[in-house]
Amino acid sequence: MNYHGGDIYDIVNNVIDYSSNINPFGVPISFRESLINGIERFTQYPDIKYLSLKKNIREYLNVNICNIVAGNGAVDIIYRLVASCGCKNMLIAAPAFSEYRGAANAASINYKEEVCYNFKNDTFDVDKIYKSVNLNNTLVTICNPNNPTGGIIQKDKLIWLCKKLNDINCMLMVDEAFIEFTDNFTEFTMLSEIDKFKNLFIIRAATKFFGMPGIRLGYGMSGNREIIKNMEKFTEPWSINTSAVIASEVIYKDYEYINKSREWIKEERHNMYTAFSSIEGLHVHKSYCNFHLLQIIKENITAEELKQKMITYGFLIRTAEGFEGLDEKFIRLAVKDKANNEKIIKALEVCL
Amino acid sequence: MNYHGGDIYDIVNNVIDYSSNINPFGVPISFRESLINGIERFTQYPDIKYLSLKKNIREYLNVNICNIVAGNGAVDIIYRLVASCGCKNMLIAAPAFSEYRGAANAASINYKEEVCYNFKNDTFDVDKIYKSVNLNNTLVTICNPNNPTGGIIQKDKLIWLCKKLNDINCMLMVDEAFIEFTDNFTEFTMLSEIDKFKNLFIIRAATKFFGMPGIRLGYGMSGNREIIKNMEKFTEPWSINTSAVIASEVIYKDYEYINKSREWIKEERHNMYTAFSSIEGLHVHKSYCNFHLLQIIKENITAEELKQKMITYGFLIRTAEGFEGLDEKFIRLAVKDKANNEKIIKALEVCL
Repeated sequence: MNYHGGDIYDIVNNVIDYSSNINPFGVPISFRESLINGIERFTQYPDIKYLSLKKNIREYLNVNICNIVAGNGAVDIIYRLVASCGCKNMLIAAPAFSEYRGAANAASINYKEEVCYNFKNDTFDVDKIYKSVNLNNTLVTICNPNNPTGGIIQKDKLIWLCKKLNDINCMLMVDEAFIEFTDNFTEFTMLSEIDKFKNLFIIRAATKFFGMPGIRLGYGMSGNREIIKNMEKFTEPWSINTSAVIASEVIYKDYEYINKSREWIKEERHNMYTAFSSIEGLHVHKSYCNFHLLQIIKENITAEELKQKMITYGFLIRTAEGFEGLDEKFIRLAVKDKANNEKIIKALEVCL
Repeated sequence: MNYHGGDIYDIVNNVIDYSSNINPFGVPISFRESLINGIERFTQYPDIKYLSLKKNIREYLNVNICNIVAGNGAVDIIYRLVASCGCKNMLIAAPAFSEYRGAANAASINYKEEVCYNFKNDTFDVDKIYKSVNLNNTLVTICNPNNPTGGIIQKDKLIWLCKKLNDINCMLMVDEAFIEFTDNFTEFTMLSEIDKFKNLFIIRAATKFFGMPGIRLGYGMSGNREIIKNMEKFTEPWSINTSAVIASEVIYKDYEYINKSREWIKEERHNMYTAFSSIEGLHVHKSYCNFHLLQIIKENITAEELKQKMITYGFLIRTAEGFEGLDEKFIRLAVKDKANNEKIIKALEVCL
């Protein structure tokens, strides 16, 4: 690899994107084949009730169809939940995905973004989250494992929080968009609790783990059928396109892709964590996702400056100061394939 | 072809769908090729501003990008226009697509559906439309050419209406979803008027003419940039999926598909009109679209009864009594390929 300045233009054009956190295996081959064979299906309107799509999710997660609402990407589910769950207030456990705020703004709901993340233990402080709820009728939003920090909340703590919120007539939204990247997601998911807690709402998507933000497929699950029904009402017809319907038919049964992805993430996340830990001037936060939050603990260099330097080495990294609770010293880096991971680590060592 | 009753089950399974009004050529080959070559693009989020998509629409229709808003199908544009155009009332010129009403309900706006269609002249009575507007600040919706009647309003009459509505602070939405099926759509479209009338909003979609309801691509155009901006605000991020973006890159330049479709529709619409005219017990309404509205003028048979009979002959037809202003004697039939058109005409002759 040539790191000379004269190659900058060429390198920038061939920049490797570590700022987005998508499965690096690309679209599952099963989806590729099904889409090619199914192109003529675009000539029909999708089923307005998306029944077969929901059945595919049921097969994957063993959730009753009546408890599933499907949407045009996870953001569509977030926006519709916030607009139609009946809560008048919102507490966003920060740092958090900016679209929770976007959904609150769109629905004209009061919201508060409270930094409840414990950066020493690399997890949310559920006690602080609970204490930050000042009003009844509040929707609390948590991403678990969290984007952009990567940390996870243990299930017993989430159950405790859910129960406490239930007692004061508040809802809990758990965005599990990244949960398939954790080593054992059945251990962490709150899916098993939806029949017990009517104030619980879980979000999933094909975007991250199946590497397909372009198909726009997200869904929500809750034991509260009134909310599911409200959300079904609160949508435009045919809001999910045919490529998402086709994907749902194959990706959840594509064990080759699923297993390959899980083996890769386990190994490469560990390798990158170890490598980051040994870089002077960098603190790496423990992650359960396909990315790491890194903190520059060296003076005289900001995340933005590091980003500019890294671009000249052909890597695009994500500065994280836009997230509530993070400052100009934080970056978020995706876990990608072994070859590129090794290269970006070398580049970081040079740039820091 | 076997018309015996014993074959009903088999025929129903292989039913030819004359109830939906989609271009029978299927998806353009250009889209098929681009989608197959572009499958890996699903691994990226679509451009949140959809700039290239809008540029493709600009190339197609020569409309300034600032005057274009893109959406997740035409219904998304309709819903967002109704919710964010600032009008407090809505007048739906009926018979009309049911989603105009759906959009009014979703936005909690007062609406009135007024049958303004002149079934003798096969066009809307613009004078009646204007007289039906009782309140300032009303959004008037018209589909031109109209679904489900097929008729067209001449441009000078629409311009007259638009001007009159402007004087009383009302808006005009013209849904041109079917306009590419007319013989000379530059003669009929109101696109040339958007710079003159700030109260004019035009809707188009890839759904009907390009035969792709499954990709969900619709768009609106207006010279009123405030409304365009409001609508851009009033949406979720990434609401248009990658297959729609890919389609926009090729279909508008696919002159082979466009010309083939226009030649087919011209010939087959004429053939069907002539054939329907000669069937006793049937009145055919003059159409500029890829379907005809037919009126059963024979006693003792309703549209529903005809539908049931036709299913046994392998054809699914659309009863139209769900449309305001139409009763149990109306059906809507698509124009399809020559071979099937000839068969359905024979079946109608037998069933009536």
